[in-house]
Amino acid sequence: MGTMDPDIPDLPSGPLDLYRKKASFNWKEMLYFIDGKDILEYKEKVFKVLENDPLYARQPGEDIPIEKMRELTFLRYDVLKVQVMSNPWKGVVLNDCLGMYDWAVATKFFLNKGMFGSTIASSGSKRHNKFTFGCFALTELSHGSNTRAMRTTATYDPSTQEFVIHSPDFEAAKFWVGNLGKNATHAVVFAQLYTPDQVCHGLHSFVVPVRDPKTLLALPGVVVGDMGKKLGQNGLDNGFVLFHNVRIPRENLLNRTGDVTPDGHYVTPFKDPNKRFGASLGALSGGRVSITRIALVNLKLALVITIRFSATRRQFGPKDMEEIPVLEYQLQQCRLIPYLATAYAFENFSKSFFMNFVEFQMGQVMKDKSDRQAELGREIHALSCSSKPMGSWAAQRGIQECREACGGHGYLAMNRLGDLRNDNDPNCTYEGDNNVLLQQTSSYLLSWLHIKLHGVRIESPLHTVDFLDDFHQILQSKFTATTLEECMDPAVPLAAYKWLVCFLLQESRNRLEQQRAKTNDEFEARNNSQVSYYYCRSLAIAYIEHTCLQRFHEWTSAEDTPAGLRPVLKKLFALYGLWSLNNHMATLYQGNYLSGRKPAEMVQITSLICLHVCFLQLKDDAVALVDVFAPPDFILNSPIGNADGQLYKNLWSTVMQGKDVLQRPSWWKEFCSDKPMVGSLRPKL
Amino acid sequence: MGTMDPDIPDLPSGPLDLYRKKASFNWKEMLYFIDGKDILEYKEKVFKVLENDPLYARQPGEDIPIEKMRELTFLRYDVLKVQVMSNPWKGVVLNDCLGMYDWAVATKFFLNKGMFGSTIASSGSKRHNKFTFGCFALTELSHGSNTRAMRTTATYDPSTQEFVIHSPDFEAAKFWVGNLGKNATHAVVFAQLYTPDQVCHGLHSFVVPVRDPKTLLALPGVVVGDMGKKLGQNGLDNGFVLFHNVRIPRENLLNRTGDVTPDGHYVTPFKDPNKRFGASLGALSGGRVSITRIALVNLKLALVITIRFSATRRQFGPKDMEEIPVLEYQLQQCRLIPYLATAYAFENFSKSFFMNFVEFQMGQVMKDKSDRQAELGREIHALSCSSKPMGSWAAQRGIQECREACGGHGYLAMNRLGDLRNDNDPNCTYEGDNNVLLQQTSSYLLSWLHIKLHGVRIESPLHTVDFLDDFHQILQSKFTATTLEECMDPAVPLAAYKWLVCFLLQESRNRLEQQRAKTNDEFEARNNSQVSYYYCRSLAIAYIEHTCLQRFHEWTSAEDTPAGLRPVLKKLFALYGLWSLNNHMATLYQGNYLSGRKPAEMVQITSLICLHVCFLQLKDDAVALVDVFAPPDFILNSPIGNADGQLYKNLWSTVMQGKDVLQRPSWWKEFCSDKPMVGSLRPKL
Repeated sequence: MGTMDPDIPDLPSGPLDLYRKKASFNWKEMLYFIDGKDILEYKEKVFKVLENDPLYARQPGEDIPIEKMRELTFLRYDVLKVQVMSNPWKGVVLNDCLGMYDWAVATKFFLNKGMFGSTIASSGSKRHNKFTFGCFALTELSHGSNTRAMRTTATYDPSTQEFVIHSPDFEAAKFWVGNLGKNATHAVVFAQLYTPDQVCHGLHSFVVPVRDPKTLLALPGVVVGDMGKKLGQNGLDNGFVLFHNVRIPRENLLNRTGDVTPDGHYVTPFKDPNKRFGASLGALSGGRVSITRIALVNLKLALVITIRFSATRRQFGPKDMEEIPVLEYQLQQCRLIPYLATAYAFENFSKSFFMNFVEFQMGQVMKDKSDRQAELGREIHALSCSSKPMGSWAAQRGIQECREACGGHGYLAMNRLGDLRNDNDPNCTYEGDNNVLLQQTSSYLLSWLHIKLHGVRIESPLHTVDFLDDFHQILQSKFTATTLEECMDPAVPLAAYKWLVCFLLQESRNRLEQQRAKTNDEFEARNNSQVSYYYCRSLAIAYIEHTCLQRFHEWTSAEDTPAGLRPVLKKLFALYGLWSLNNHMATLYQGNYLSGRKPAEMVQITSLICLHVCFLQLKDDAVALVDVFAPPDFILNSPIGNADGQLYKNLWSTVMQGKDVLQRPSWWKEFCSDKPMVGSLRPKL
Repeated sequence: MGTMDPDIPDLPSGPLDLYRKKASFNWKEMLYFIDGKDILEYKEKVFKVLENDPLYARQPGEDIPIEKMRELTFLRYDVLKVQVMSNPWKGVVLNDCLGMYDWAVATKFFLNKGMFGSTIASSGSKRHNKFTFGCFALTELSHGSNTRAMRTTATYDPSTQEFVIHSPDFEAAKFWVGNLGKNATHAVVFAQLYTPDQVCHGLHSFVVPVRDPKTLLALPGVVVGDMGKKLGQNGLDNGFVLFHNVRIPRENLLNRTGDVTPDGHYVTPFKDPNKRFGASLGALSGGRVSITRIALVNLKLALVITIRFSATRRQFGPKDMEEIPVLEYQLQQCRLIPYLATAYAFENFSKSFFMNFVEFQMGQVMKDKSDRQAELGREIHALSCSSKPMGSWAAQRGIQECREACGGHGYLAMNRLGDLRNDNDPNCTYEGDNNVLLQQTSSYLLSWLHIKLHGVRIESPLHTVDFLDDFHQILQSKFTATTLEECMDPAVPLAAYKWLVCFLLQESRNRLEQQRAKTNDEFEARNNSQVSYYYCRSLAIAYIEHTCLQRFHEWTSAEDTPAGLRPVLKKLFALYGLWSLNNHMATLYQGNYLSGRKPAEMVQITSLICLHVCFLQLKDDAVALVDVFAPPDFILNSPIGNADGQLYKNLWSTVMQGKDVLQRPSWWKEFCSDKPMVGSLRPKL
């Protein structure tokens, strides 16, 4: 504890002390270990700024009209003054903090300052940095995944040295654009570039003014509007735009991937149009890395609320009048604590993965043209295409489990589990549908197997696939643990995952080869190769889970991990490993990694023992484990999740502060007026 | 087709014709087969009444304040004139139809007319039927599942022949009461009955006036209010109430399970207080049967929207400019069509199960005291405690899959998948938390095994457990199919499920016995016996899936099932059976029902073949299969799910009809005003 920051404030005492006193570790030490002094101070500063600003005041469960939510989000965004950061992780932490408050504010901020700003800066060769409020317009009403089929055009007119931006019809309206609904003055628009010779040079991006920054009225030829209500994140104004021959200067083409000369000739630094297309989407590559983290933040908030609720909600007990916290029930522990272990695994993974991404970005900035840099890009693509699904689905399922585990109180809007679920939901969809993305990861792995089978040694920059070099030996391995103690050895789940990836890789390859042998038609072959959907999907998931587990293991056993934290981290590791593995049990049998009844029973028993023994200890640590994750009550904004554990007092006072809570309805006369039945004009059902 | 009603109107032609023409069966024949003439006409009448009433007009995606939603729900409820029905199934169909429009209207109606009305009628010995607007107040702020721990008291005062209803503190406030937030004038309140000798006689129900029917103002001593925003069903006003020594006449005790004489003596027809408690909750027993059906309706609506969307949304294709419907992708088929098969399985099950329940109710009305009637009650309890979890979770997961399968457009509120998910969500919680309920079913099955092991023959009124009589032989059985054709035989999944139930029953029993042997403390034993949580939970789920599958099989092979419908129904049966079984694969291996690699691969292949062959045909039937379920567009209220398949036209026109869609925001001056930076007063982050 010598290195611990003494400034971490104590939590208010109350009913949660029952568990806090039983914890096997010091939560402040864990917090300090995860964040460090600098980040801790920064988080505190951000939270204070928000809490001290009346614009950020709110009431749990308030019912705010969408127009008002959008206004509030803009005003909250508008007061944020952010200094340039030397530490890129601080940017993530800022996003975490804003997102813990409300993702709409965080997204509005990062779409404009981050994505729009950096696209202009990185793609635009420094000639477009004076625009006021930006957005990023790629998808159209009738096209999302198939970006190449976008139909908006940008036709160059050499007589005026302008591009003419045009939407052929409403199906080509740009759609789903964040910040565009009410706010944006400029959009980065992706359109098919046509030169005067009527040749299409593919998708390029253009800065197009859409609203007058002095009036926020739409500019001539632009139909721009608000898409309306979404399932969540309604503070963010997603919008659409249609262009009717809107003219913009030649210079508004973001010309990193291709340019048009004043007289209308197309020039490009790239020879391969596919590479050009990829590069123009380059600015999007960090999205999935961010989402992996964003989903984790949602899961953590839901767990804070639900574990604290479970530690204070009492129901039934040994004697009639002596009820015990529902956290004491193994059923409740089974539902929640595996997600808590998952959150710790992801906490480490999301940070280390972000650092890998920073390394890649640095290489890009330095114009690193090495093979390693290219390989790093491919590996990060494969990781992000599986980490986003893993993270967003874990959050989706975990939050739903939390909602159900809080019973009726979880269904009350003021307790925030609904907002968390609704705000997390698009993480499964944007930056690529989860199921579609997983195919990218499995393709990456299949390409490594292909190389391997041609005798090339496998080694990737981040070493996530290095074990495939032992592909054949791994496939020969079996589950050998014979006692429960052996099953708790970290090597056991790691070895099982290595076998899983190899087995699924082999099965996926076999099935794809079978399909290729059957058909001549390439499109047919590709669609039919989705028959191996289950294998490829499981393969991609097993790969990312193995990577996450491997890094979790390295984290728990690293030298600088404090001795006081290792026991609980090792328990979380064991639980995460066995619980994740449980989903692949059928495959482990199918491939004879497990066989007969004996080992089968043991692994099942292991996870039950895990529930029984390991959980019995983890439930005592659960409150301290979420205290580490918990933002101040003001940010958490959930009466059942307050740090003081005064579940019913907080809930009741929030209910009583509701609008018109005790008033009779405005429509009371409709109810009370006498309606004599002199024959009904309305038909009877 | 001779028996087919010619009055079923054609659907509008359009892009969906592509699939409608390919269907292997006539959707009108299927609709007629499922509903019959009488119900079809009734549904049409109900839909017409709603569509013709301007009160029921609405706009997809509209953003209505909660107070207004509650008003609209009341007004919509208030115009419903329902005739007494001789056919109890018609009541279910009415609920279906109202719920397809909006569950808040349906729930408001059935809570007041159904539950409140029937409780007064059945428990109250005909002396309480003049009350105006009712609700049902059981759960308290601090107690839900543990109903016996309710703390509201009803103390009899012989001097005035009144009961004094009292809430000891706010934690005993009645909470979550539907209709109570704004509307109810009377509540059926569950309270601990105390006689003047200070003896507590347990929970009884009392009719307590809470608001003046002439003014809707709270009565003296009553604090009644609105709980505020929920995750969904915000048209329904859930509320709370606190009583401060509120006096009600002695006659307001609903005296079927116990009464108090004028001078204060307690009298009861029951000897066992547990039986008395159970009987007083008897009025609730139909809730889970209803929810099984309600969840199915939600799943069907989501499937109608998503299958029609998938049949008209085009993305990618064999050639660059020739895109194909996303329903052509096996990935999309794998995600959706198993839920379509599930919906058909549940369609049959929910109806046949309701009819079982009606039989039971008739017995109650007839005061049938036979053993069979008691057994029937137990069996229906076990079925409803597992069918509600099965149904509500399938809907929860299926709607989420639909939301994701519609991509971004699924995240737009106007397309209704969010409302369906949010409105379905409480089905997992009310009338008993799903996980807790499943324990009731497993206990029922364990009690049969206990009897069996004592040599008694197993036979239940609905025959859902009869096969357990062959317990030992079934446990000896193995997976024997050797060809794919054999796997498509209905006997294969049915036999596998029988083995599964027997195996899980044996494992659950073994584990419970082990726990019982280990501890003396009864509460400790019960909590530790939750170690077998996974087994008991899987057992209950396997039992209800087997029952559902068995009835589906009987339905598809029944003599009066039209020949033209059998092939598609058999395909749906095969898919539902194998897909459900897939979740139990690890257990099938663990118990050596499957073993080695060979059968393993085959079953996996079977489900892939299912995806490949069976689906390839089912995707052509998918649109017709949802046409059968689809209500009129007005009811479905989802632009991407309209019967005409004009996906983008409908979506776009709805977007353009949004409120203030093209207007600049009211707060435009905040954005546009010049804010010179002369040093910031706000701290920087």
